[in-house]
Amino acid sequence: MNYKMMGHFLAQILSIEGIFMLPALGISLYCGEMAAFRGFLDTLLLIVGIVLVLFLLCRGAPSAFRAREGLVCVGISWIVLSLVGCLPFYISREIPSYIDCFFEMVSGFTTTGASIVPDVEALSKAILYWRSFSHWLGGMGVLVFLLAFTGEKGQGFTMHLLRAESPGPNVGKLVPKMRKTAAILYLIYVVLTILDIVFLMAGDMPLFEAVCTAFGTAGTGGFGIKNDSMGGYSPYLQNVTTVFMILFGVNFSCYYLLLIRQWKSVILDEELRAYLGIILGSIVLITLNLRGYYGTIGETLRHAAFQVGSIITTTGFSTTDYDLWPSFSRTILLCLMVIGACAGSTGGGLKVARVLLLFKGLHRNVRQMLQPRKVELVRNNGQTVSQKVLDNTNTYLVAYVIILFVVFTIISLDGFSVGTNFSAVLCTFNNIGPGLEAVGPTCNFSQYSSLSKLVLSWAMLAGRLEIFPILVLFSRSTWKQR
Amino acid sequence: MNYKMMGHFLAQILSIEGIFMLPALGISLYCGEMAAFRGFLDTLLLIVGIVLVLFLLCRGAPSAFRAREGLVCVGISWIVLSLVGCLPFYISREIPSYIDCFFEMVSGFTTTGASIVPDVEALSKAILYWRSFSHWLGGMGVLVFLLAFTGEKGQGFTMHLLRAESPGPNVGKLVPKMRKTAAILYLIYVVLTILDIVFLMAGDMPLFEAVCTAFGTAGTGGFGIKNDSMGGYSPYLQNVTTVFMILFGVNFSCYYLLLIRQWKSVILDEELRAYLGIILGSIVLITLNLRGYYGTIGETLRHAAFQVGSIITTTGFSTTDYDLWPSFSRTILLCLMVIGACAGSTGGGLKVARVLLLFKGLHRNVRQMLQPRKVELVRNNGQTVSQKVLDNTNTYLVAYVIILFVVFTIISLDGFSVGTNFSAVLCTFNNIGPGLEAVGPTCNFSQYSSLSKLVLSWAMLAGRLEIFPILVLFSRSTWKQR
Repeated sequence: MNYKMMGHFLAQILSIEGIFMLPALGISLYCGEMAAFRGFLDTLLLIVGIVLVLFLLCRGAPSAFRAREGLVCVGISWIVLSLVGCLPFYISREIPSYIDCFFEMVSGFTTTGASIVPDVEALSKAILYWRSFSHWLGGMGVLVFLLAFTGEKGQGFTMHLLRAESPGPNVGKLVPKMRKTAAILYLIYVVLTILDIVFLMAGDMPLFEAVCTAFGTAGTGGFGIKNDSMGGYSPYLQNVTTVFMILFGVNFSCYYLLLIRQWKSVILDEELRAYLGIILGSIVLITLNLRGYYGTIGETLRHAAFQVGSIITTTGFSTTDYDLWPSFSRTILLCLMVIGACAGSTGGGLKVARVLLLFKGLHRNVRQMLQPRKVELVRNNGQTVSQKVLDNTNTYLVAYVIILFVVFTIISLDGFSVGTNFSAVLCTFNNIGPGLEAVGPTCNFSQYSSLSKLVLSWAMLAGRLEIFPILVLFSRSTWKQR
Repeated sequence: MNYKMMGHFLAQILSIEGIFMLPALGISLYCGEMAAFRGFLDTLLLIVGIVLVLFLLCRGAPSAFRAREGLVCVGISWIVLSLVGCLPFYISREIPSYIDCFFEMVSGFTTTGASIVPDVEALSKAILYWRSFSHWLGGMGVLVFLLAFTGEKGQGFTMHLLRAESPGPNVGKLVPKMRKTAAILYLIYVVLTILDIVFLMAGDMPLFEAVCTAFGTAGTGGFGIKNDSMGGYSPYLQNVTTVFMILFGVNFSCYYLLLIRQWKSVILDEELRAYLGIILGSIVLITLNLRGYYGTIGETLRHAAFQVGSIITTTGFSTTDYDLWPSFSRTILLCLMVIGACAGSTGGGLKVARVLLLFKGLHRNVRQMLQPRKVELVRNNGQTVSQKVLDNTNTYLVAYVIILFVVFTIISLDGFSVGTNFSAVLCTFNNIGPGLEAVGPTCNFSQYSSLSKLVLSWAMLAGRLEIFPILVLFSRSTWKQR
């Protein structure tokens, strides 16, 4: 492990975090929230200090990363970002326990949206802004941002980085240069976010709320700024959010293809079709299952669509307490939690593309079993999928299931029901936010013990970074000197 | 698909079932249970009729099976065995609904032990005997029995058959001839069962109860003949059962190795060590977690050991209502349900060998990620595991997870809690029996709808036959004429 290189990299990452903290500092000053101002100022001074020390200590670090350094840097930098980023919560005393602060920040950056704050409306504006902004930054990825605006560190590094931070089984470059790819992604991201803000303000939402809601939607995060999440907003605002949540769950390369007018590849994209099909099917099934729960069929459809969009994209906003829905509807939501959004979107979960590959691979193996001598290939959008990608997808599921059960067992020490714990693990690991029962949309994670909060934070990071950058931190071979 | 061949095969299988039904017929006559006598007699006559017709219709069938026929025959024959085997329940009116009878029989043959009978003590002796005996027959496998006592159908067929019916990722032959392997397995099975009966009778258990209990233990089934399962028996009888459950969860090739005095390979066997380690660890954790629940530490240990042995071997007997245990202990039991017993034992679940391979494969992949250019191999008992076995193991988990979620969603239509449904799926699919909450050890599956009972029956069969022989029945390519 080259520690100089890692220090240099961390200094860059922290600088970006510091710069992005400035608007929150401004808001606290503008609103006269002195505790929050103090929190952001102290944190910024600390960041400046750390960055200076790191730059001095790590001068002359080589810039060529190997696979190992790439993975470890991604994992470590997300942890450090959260450790430092949560300091304003702590210093301002708005969240008294440091572990709670850390949980909340990890939940923000990983776009989970699981909260330990019982009364969000009591938080100051600056803190609310920073909470929601963390979704936006974490959604597309802070390392991708670094890449887009500072330049490349050698081909190997950028690939490792994009692979680790972008969701999905396959990282496609849009254009030959990685840096340009990252910049295009961020451009699309910014434009869509602004569109969302405009549509929300057109429905008479105040600017501040519109910005925070759009951050949560764009990053598929889900931190609300109201205690009832989106329940108190008008049907128009709820529907706008439904549409944008679903839009942010689409693979961003589809938008790029639209920009360069390749309509056909977008329309024929198997993942996009499956994603929209699952959404439509779930809405229909839940609406049928919910007969009699709401006044009109329109209202039922609106709530069903909002919750389906919110859960499959792993956002986690809610307009109603879906924990009161019948068992079948809740189970569909649990399945959507696992499936997740499209690869290359800001959403979490297994990703639709990966689920498709798992099904196709399984179907291929069954056919192969029936006719052992025939060679069967798996195709995606007409192209053959390599055995390596299939193997990686299977391995991913193995890691996914093992982590699920380990975390599930550890948090059961706190004594909550099986349903609560199971959904708590699914919701953090898939970066969704609220779950069912005691961690349902009207409740929060504050009642878990510190140990559970740390383990769940770990699960959120593992889920956001697609497991392996976090897993390697626990492998002996990572820290072995060669 | 060669239907003649299939008919011929089914005739043989049904003959065996008929022969094994004779003792139950005798018991009903001896005890003067006329309704049950009628049930068994009518079923036997029906079997004779079907067998004669099949033999006549399917004369001159080729005896060389291909992979396709082998898989399909295994799947179909287990379904037919259950469809016919449950007739005595129905004709005797002891279980009034045919779907309930089918569920009960599938639960018997697959050694699940999930019951829809609310009051088992009201059943006649002959029916109780047949219920428990189905565990014994299903445990080692009726097709393996056919193989052991009738002869081979060509190498391909026997391999497909053993692979489909014997649990585990890897089917080892003990001796070069398959038929002899099957006979040795059954011999060990019979001897261990008799030993169990002797030990139980030494503790003053009546012969009939000892035989039924031993059948349930040997097949790791779990149908009780008392309403409180094993709760009313003396500590000695409970401990004997604990030990024998754990013994029947060991890979039977270990016993063969002991017979030919290869002590060292048994002691060094990684799966056996992991299996015993998991059992020991779970007992310790649960005992610590249960402080204060029972009078003495000895009693706590006894209950912990019994339940751990019962769940990991997927037997499903109980001595106490473990659904009242704290969340952590119940979660450990849920994890044990998924892990299951050793490969090549009569137990279900994923199998310890497969779990070990999943962990090792994952660890290998993490190391590979850190050093892409180094070739890393996975070893088991010192021997390299081929990539094909690793791939199959991963594919198995994919199928496992997909089936889990599909069944989970369908049965949620009945409106029970998430915890109930989740444990009901785990318990049927892993062939355990009772689960948690509304399907806990003091409850049963009778409250589920007919649809759910059919789907859960399907899950039991899929679990017992390691998924693929049941999955191919739903593949279009299976029924396509070439």
